[in-house]
Amino acid sequence: MKIAVLPGDGIGPEIIREARKVLEVLQQEGLAMELTEAPLGGAAYDQYGSPYPEATQKLAREADAVLLGAVGGPAYDNLDRPLRPERGLLAIRKDLQLFANLRPAILYPELANASTLKPEVVSGLDIMIVRELTGDIYFGQPRGIRTNEAGEREGFNTMLYAESEVRRIAHVAFNIAMKRNKKLCSVDKANVLETTEFWKEIMIDVAKEYPEVTLTHMYVDNAAMQLVRNPKQFDVMVTGNIFGDILSDEASMLTGSIGMLPSASLDKNHKGLYEPSHGSAPDIAGKNIANPLATILSVAMMMRYSFNLDAVALRIESAVKKVLADGLRTADIYEEGTRKVSCSEMGDAVVAAL
Amino acid sequence: MKIAVLPGDGIGPEIIREARKVLEVLQQEGLAMELTEAPLGGAAYDQYGSPYPEATQKLAREADAVLLGAVGGPAYDNLDRPLRPERGLLAIRKDLQLFANLRPAILYPELANASTLKPEVVSGLDIMIVRELTGDIYFGQPRGIRTNEAGEREGFNTMLYAESEVRRIAHVAFNIAMKRNKKLCSVDKANVLETTEFWKEIMIDVAKEYPEVTLTHMYVDNAAMQLVRNPKQFDVMVTGNIFGDILSDEASMLTGSIGMLPSASLDKNHKGLYEPSHGSAPDIAGKNIANPLATILSVAMMMRYSFNLDAVALRIESAVKKVLADGLRTADIYEEGTRKVSCSEMGDAVVAAL
Ligand SMILES: CC(C)[C@H](C(=O)O)[C@@H](O)C(=O)O
Ligand SMILES: CC(C)[C@H](C(=O)O)[C@@H](O)C(=O)O
Repeated sequence: MKIAVLPGDGIGPEIIREARKVLEVLQQEGLAMELTEAPLGGAAYDQYGSPYPEATQKLAREADAVLLGAVGGPAYDNLDRPLRPERGLLAIRKDLQLFANLRPAILYPELANASTLKPEVVSGLDIMIVRELTGDIYFGQPRGIRTNEAGEREGFNTMLYAESEVRRIAHVAFNIAMKRNKKLCSVDKANVLETTEFWKEIMIDVAKEYPEVTLTHMYVDNAAMQLVRNPKQFDVMVTGNIFGDILSDEASMLTGSIGMLPSASLDKNHKGLYEPSHGSAPDIAGKNIANPLATILSVAMMMRYSFNLDAVALRIESAVKKVLADGLRTADIYEEGTRKVSCSEMGDAVVAAL
Repeated sequence: MKIAVLPGDGIGPEIIREARKVLEVLQQEGLAMELTEAPLGGAAYDQYGSPYPEATQKLAREADAVLLGAVGGPAYDNLDRPLRPERGLLAIRKDLQLFANLRPAILYPELANASTLKPEVVSGLDIMIVRELTGDIYFGQPRGIRTNEAGEREGFNTMLYAESEVRRIAHVAFNIAMKRNKKLCSVDKANVLETTEFWKEIMIDVAKEYPEVTLTHMYVDNAAMQLVRNPKQFDVMVTGNIFGDILSDEASMLTGSIGMLPSASLDKNHKGLYEPSHGSAPDIAGKNIANPLATILSVAMMMRYSFNLDAVALRIESAVKKVLADGLRTADIYEEGTRKVSCSEMGDAVVAAL
C-alpha cells in the first residue's frame, strides 16, 4: 500500500513524526507499505509557491491513502486567497473527491475531567459525525465580491447540493449507522433553505433502503443546542459541509480533548485522507509538546477504512488506551496525578504498547 | 405608544398573557399604551390562510413595537413552504426591516445548576449576540430546487451581504460594545467564504470609528468550539443571519435555561419586535406550565430599546430576579428546594414584585 505523508505546517511535522513511528512498526512486522512525504499548505507555498503543488498532487493521486498533519499559521495570513494554506486542504479534498468526512467525538474515560461539561452529561459520549466534504457553499458557483446593479459592493456565495452528492453521503451515513446503533440524525435548515429541504427529501428517500435504521431530522440551530443540552442523545449525525464544519467542532470540544480526535475523509473507493481534527497550533509548534494521539488514531482509521485492517486499527486504538491508562499525558490533557510527557515520548510509549 | 401583540402558536398565547399583565400594570400606572392583538404564524394561517396576513401587517407596521409569543407546531408541518408558520416570522422581520437581532445569553446565579456545563465555566456568563436578521442566505436570490444542465435535480441558495447591510449591523454591534466592555468579536468563515471575507473587511473599516473598542475575528467553527471551551472569553459577538442562528442557540443553551432568555429585533429607528429566544413548545402548550419569564424579559428589552425607558426595563428585570431569589420556578427550571409554580402563578408573582 502506498501512503502519501503530508506533514503540513505548525505542529504538523512533529505529530506526523510520531504517527510514522507507528506505521514503521507495522512495516517492520511485514505490512508492505510505501511512505512518501510531500508538502501541503504553507510549507508547500514556501517551497513551490502553491499550497497544493503538482508534486503533491501527483503523489496524492497515486497513493492509496494520505496521512496529513495540519495546515496554516500566522506566517501565511497575509497571502492572497488562492495561496493560503487552507486552500491546499480544500483543493486536495476536491481533487481526490473525498466527499465523506468522518469525525468521531469520543470521550475517553481517563480524560473525563477535561470536558467543560458535567461528567454525567458526557460520560460515555461516542458520536460519529458524517460531514459532506466536497459540495455545499464551500465549492458552489457563482461566488465572489462584486459591485451590484445599484453600484454597491457585495459578497456572495452559492450553497448547492445535487441529488447524487446527497445520495452518496446518505449511503455512507446509513452504512455507518448500520454498523453502530442504527440511529441516524440528519441535520438541516429545511424550514428556511431549499438546499437543505432538498437534502432532507433525499435522505428520506435513501432511508427506504435501510429499513432497520431510524432516521430523524433536526434543524441545525436546534442541533447546536442539543449537543450542549444532551449530547448522548446522538449516535450518527449526517450533514452538509458548512453545518458539519461547525457542529463537528462543537461536538469535538464537548470531550474537552480535541488533541485526541482523528478524522477520515473518504472517496467512493475507500481511498482516504486521514488527519487529526485539531489545527496546526502555531503557538506550540517546534516545542515537542503537541499531542500526537489524534494523528496516531488517524492511522488507525486509515487501517480500518482504506485497508480494511480492522484488527490493526483496534491494536493501535488499544495501545492509545493503554498509554492513557498508564497515566501518560501530553501538556494539553495533563492533570494532577498523571505523568506529563513530550510529543515524542508519547509516540514512543504508543509504539511500546502496540 | 402603540404595541402590536402577536401571541402566535403553541405556548405563545399563555406566555403572552403573562407578559401582558406586566404591560397592563405599567398602563394602569399611567404609561400611555395601546395594546392590540393579531395572529401570526399557524394561528394566522388558520384564520386567514396566510402566516402573515394583511391585518397583521397593517397593525405591525403602525405599531412602535411588537411583542411576539412564538410560532409553529406539528399541526402545520405539512403545509407548503410559503404557508408555514415560520414564514410568518421571516416575513415580519423582513417587512419591518428588523435587521438587528440582539440575543443575550445570561446565566442567572439562582439557576446555575441548570447548565450542563461546570459551574466554574459558566458562572457569571453574560454574552450579547448581535445577529444580522434580514440578509444572508435566509433571503438571498436566486434560490430554489431546479434541474441543472446535466439533467440532475439540485437545491441551491445564495449567501449575500451588501456593504450597507454589513455597515449598519456593525454600527449596532459597536454601539452595544461601547455600552458594555468595549470588546467585540466578529464571527466569519473568511478563509472559505467570500461573503464573510467581505463582512470582515467592512467590520475592520467600521472599527476605525470606534477606536475604544477592541475588535477580534473568529472563524465560525472555532466560535462554536470556544463557546463550549471557555464561553466567558466573549462579551459582544456579531455575525450574519445563519451563523447567528446557530451560535445564539448554542450560547443560550450554555445557560441551561433557555426559558429565561429574551430577544429584540430592531430596525434603524428603534422600532422593534420582542420575543422569547425559545420556540412554541407544542408539547406543553395549553397546560399552563410554560415559563413566561423570557417573554416578560422581552417586555423589559422593549422598554429599553424601543421606548428608551431604561428605569422601567430595570424594574421588570429586578422583579424577575426577585421571584427567582424567592425560589419560584416553573417546571423547566425547577429543582429540589425551590417552589414549583404554573405559568400564570409566575406571571402574577412578577407583577407582585414589580
Ligand atoms: C481550514 C478549513 C478550510 C477547514 C474547513 O472549514 O473545512 C477546517 O476548518 C476543517 O474543518 O477541516
Ligand atoms: C423559526 C426560524 C425560521 C428562526 C430562524 O432561523 O431565524 C428561528 O430559528 C430563530 O432563530 O428565530
